[in-house]
Amino acid sequence: MNMRFLDACWGKPVDRTPVWLMRQAGRYLPEYMAVRSKCTFLELCKTPELAAEVSIQPVDILGVDAAIMFSDILTPVEPMGMKLDFVPGPVFENPIRSMADVEKLRIPQMEQDVPYVLETIKILRRELAGKVPLIGFGGAPFTLACYMVEGKGSKDFAQIKRMMYAAPEVYAALMEKITTMSMEYLNAQITAGAQCIQIFDTWGGILSPVDYERYVLPYTTRLINGLNRMETPVIHFVKGSGAMLDSVQKAGGDVMGLDWHVNLGAARDLLGPKMAVQGNLDPTTLYAPQNIIEREVKRVLDENAGRPGHIFNLGHGILPTVSPDNAKFMVECVHRLSQK
Amino acid sequence: MNMRFLDACWGKPVDRTPVWLMRQAGRYLPEYMAVRSKCTFLELCKTPELAAEVSIQPVDILGVDAAIMFSDILTPVEPMGMKLDFVPGPVFENPIRSMADVEKLRIPQMEQDVPYVLETIKILRRELAGKVPLIGFGGAPFTLACYMVEGKGSKDFAQIKRMMYAAPEVYAALMEKITTMSMEYLNAQITAGAQCIQIFDTWGGILSPVDYERYVLPYTTRLINGLNRMETPVIHFVKGSGAMLDSVQKAGGDVMGLDWHVNLGAARDLLGPKMAVQGNLDPTTLYAPQNIIEREVKRVLDENAGRPGHIFNLGHGILPTVSPDNAKFMVECVHRLSQK
Repeated sequence: MNMRFLDACWGKPVDRTPVWLMRQAGRYLPEYMAVRSKCTFLELCKTPELAAEVSIQPVDILGVDAAIMFSDILTPVEPMGMKLDFVPGPVFENPIRSMADVEKLRIPQMEQDVPYVLETIKILRRELAGKVPLIGFGGAPFTLACYMVEGKGSKDFAQIKRMMYAAPEVYAALMEKITTMSMEYLNAQITAGAQCIQIFDTWGGILSPVDYERYVLPYTTRLINGLNRMETPVIHFVKGSGAMLDSVQKAGGDVMGLDWHVNLGAARDLLGPKMAVQGNLDPTTLYAPQNIIEREVKRVLDENAGRPGHIFNLGHGILPTVSPDNAKFMVECVHRLSQK
Repeated sequence: MNMRFLDACWGKPVDRTPVWLMRQAGRYLPEYMAVRSKCTFLELCKTPELAAEVSIQPVDILGVDAAIMFSDILTPVEPMGMKLDFVPGPVFENPIRSMADVEKLRIPQMEQDVPYVLETIKILRRELAGKVPLIGFGGAPFTLACYMVEGKGSKDFAQIKRMMYAAPEVYAALMEKITTMSMEYLNAQITAGAQCIQIFDTWGGILSPVDYERYVLPYTTRLINGLNRMETPVIHFVKGSGAMLDSVQKAGGDVMGLDWHVNLGAARDLLGPKMAVQGNLDPTTLYAPQNIIEREVKRVLDENAGRPGHIFNLGHGILPTVSPDNAKFMVECVHRLSQK
């Protein structure tokens, strides 16, 4: 079993820097598209055999040091009582706008309501045995709330901001409920076999540092504190949080995900030696010729300067139009250039 | 004449903190919409009497301490030989993709090619006499290059990144040409009467700090150094640059525009006392009830802690769906709470 990834999460020394890619099971891979052509995105999420198949593809094709289960952060929101569709972006037809809407939300029974997620994890643990560890994941409460309140993607997040400022009691009730759901959902993943949990806060970075501490941090902190973390490290990734990493760090967790807008070395200096980091190559670097990809991989490794507790990754999800050959080359570069 | 804005740009003490709003001449104002309903967006940019009229509206309606001429950053790009349309976002039908494309671009003769911009400035200086100073503006070279190469807005900026990495000589030639054009364009604005210049780098923040220093900073630095700045302060605003303000500062300029993702006090500590700052209220705060708007205005003023050289503004453009009453209330709060 390749333990490089988990060791790095715990801050232990490793022989080579472990690497995986956010969205590594995805559209840039022809092998993924072949599976995806047979069903809808949601059907793929809900069919454990297929979800497991696409989760394993990048392990075999790219040689990454961890697998992440294929799913969507909104999967557990649907059984809270919200009708979800992808067109192709996610859309809820009944967005949350009032206390009555919040009260109608239920906390799913994970074994009954999202059995396919837990089954995907079990299949993956069997099929990955002796290969690489398995990462489970969920959305941070704030990011889930953004989708649930806006009803879809947004540019200015006017609805959730209005709720936050003008109806703070509705906002708080919603966030409490989502936090409880997320805790149960992620602990169910751990029980099913996930060996690491990544929390994605895609929209936490839309807020000012002060509003992040007021409206997001208490809930993410409660979530992370409520996870069964004894044997399962937690990666916390807040996109766009480069100028408030000190605030984000207060939420806890073992590994801080970094996007490409920060210098990784400066971030490590700020976060201190007890927190591992994950990142942070600009995803568009994979559009570059291979000599540039190699130069940039080396730069990120140099910024880390050999400190233990670094998981190499992109600073955000791999883009659907990059070449798999370049992704594979990047993985090779990380392993070759970091070899002790 | 209300000199509060210019004094603050130069770092001089003022009686009350000056305030204006990015995109203050815009769609949230019914008075603007009344003018705009009679013509297209580009016609409004190219008709000096109308452009001047909408530029003055927020001075009268909101009581801001500066006017900014109404125009678009892409106005001077069209006479370089690129066909521009708004649908409603900007679209160039012949994007730049090769050295031959770059070579075909011409440097406009400002008096002949964008006379309406210079005429708008002249009208505004006459009509604003005894009221408030006039801000001219332009896009930073990188932001203009993004639009010229992508041909329209983009999510991942794949085209310009590919050019930057795989055809650096084409990228450099394009950036040189845009920088020269921008220098002449902004100096023509100063000659026509602009009393301050704001450079908008809307997309500079998509890059990593290292790529910003490699691919953007040299050109913005040359641009700022080439402006007739003796009597005309320069505001440099790079959206999304909160985690690399030290890099952005190297470009020079008198005032650093800050978006709402940074703590204004921490940014001032980093930038030092010689650089003024502009910002940085979260634009969505204007969706909040007035007691929250007042609290947040006070918070930003408190972060500045009375240091000279602060121009109050939003951290990005005012959103089209906010209430003008809230914008007006925000301006009043800034003046009332900062009064010496």
